[in-house]
Amino acid sequence: MTFSFALREPSAIVDFMSTETDAVAAADLELISHELCPYVHRAAIVLREKGVPYRIRYIDLKAKPPWFLAVSPRGKVPVLVAGGVPIFESAVIVEYLDETHPPHIVPASPLERARHRAWAEIVSDLLVQQWKLMVAASAADRETARRNVVDLLQRFEPEVRGPWFAGDALGIVDVAIAPAFFRFDYLDRWWNLGLYEGLPNVGAWRDRLVARPSVRETVIDGFEEKLRAYVAQL
Amino acid sequence: MTFSFALREPSAIVDFMSTETDAVAAADLELISHELCPYVHRAAIVLREKGVPYRIRYIDLKAKPPWFLAVSPRGKVPVLVAGGVPIFESAVIVEYLDETHPPHIVPASPLERARHRAWAEIVSDLLVQQWKLMVAASAADRETARRNVVDLLQRFEPEVRGPWFAGDALGIVDVAIAPAFFRFDYLDRWWNLGLYEGLPNVGAWRDRLVARPSVRETVIDGFEEKLRAYVAQL
Repeated sequence: MTFSFALREPSAIVDFMSTETDAVAAADLELISHELCPYVHRAAIVLREKGVPYRIRYIDLKAKPPWFLAVSPRGKVPVLVAGGVPIFESAVIVEYLDETHPPHIVPASPLERARHRAWAEIVSDLLVQQWKLMVAASAADRETARRNVVDLLQRFEPEVRGPWFAGDALGIVDVAIAPAFFRFDYLDRWWNLGLYEGLPNVGAWRDRLVARPSVRETVIDGFEEKLRAYVAQL
Repeated sequence: MTFSFALREPSAIVDFMSTETDAVAAADLELISHELCPYVHRAAIVLREKGVPYRIRYIDLKAKPPWFLAVSPRGKVPVLVAGGVPIFESAVIVEYLDETHPPHIVPASPLERARHRAWAEIVSDLLVQQWKLMVAASAADRETARRNVVDLLQRFEPEVRGPWFAGDALGIVDVAIAPAFFRFDYLDRWWNLGLYEGLPNVGAWRDRLVARPSVRETVIDGFEEKLRAYVAQL
């Protein structure tokens, strides 16, 4: 993909912080991505669920181009470039997309919102443990990470209302966890992790999420082989 | 302080997810805290800035009571118990308090909101490095953490509009970073870290934030001695 947006200077970004810019942002979205990144996957799922057109641009995180470091203060993906303005952090991108593209997946009630946002944060712990599973240098390290994953999934078991986390509508916890479930399927197939034993609610939730087109169809072709090659060199 | 709120069962929490519960939550707030925690400090600053009455309850994180683990899935503070319903994660608590207690410190524009939320997330990296400064086992480790702190502060330098992060009104980035600045003052006094050299915008911002009553007056009495004793045993 070509590098097709013009970066604004910080002072210009400040000047453009207006409702008009938000309208521009809605019209022109580019998602800066790494091919395998679960955090990018969250943004892509929301874009697909809402039917919002966007371009995607992949970068090599081992050789980050200077323009990328200028738009991503943490040097991480995803970055969503909205009308020329970079937005970073996956949870922030998800809320931005939800605010600018109704119908909303963030609930209207402040208390319910807080519950969803907090459980979406807990998913971040799950992704940290998924990463530790992938980089484990020994069987003992892998078993520790596996147990931590199961501990976290157990906390979700009584919280899942079904069919989605919060009931009938897909929400931000579903979006947050779907990339984790999707990747666990491969790790589980390779290493027989038995993550969902004794967790019927989480297991059924996982089944529904990984079957969802917005989850399956927003990863690159040949995902499993690329993930396997990536994990092998970690 | 006494343990004075009744915990609801998870199923009851679900049933109470309504506008009425939000009204109850606004009326009865208890902040579960650790005496020195910067994340709790954020919630306390927002409560003070908004003039919202609340109770505070301190717990010993080295001997977490079972009732605490039942309301805090990550075993972390802060937890805000709002009308009997626990809310966790400091950023989530800040947004909840802002949504339920106008005037709002989260901006109305989605793009501006996203910018504030993302920079508030970067403050979390700063708090991680502050922690590494405190637990450093050697002069070399401390110097590494110090350099990482300075690198992060440098990223803020061109972003601070003044007098506060985003201009004339205190916002969520100010709330997020104030506890970090407040604690750096002590670490700097003990260890002469020179964190703000060559950073006039960040330095002036820090001066204003640590002088703000909502920041200074929401920590325990004898904070410096307690922080020093805590750091000594890390």
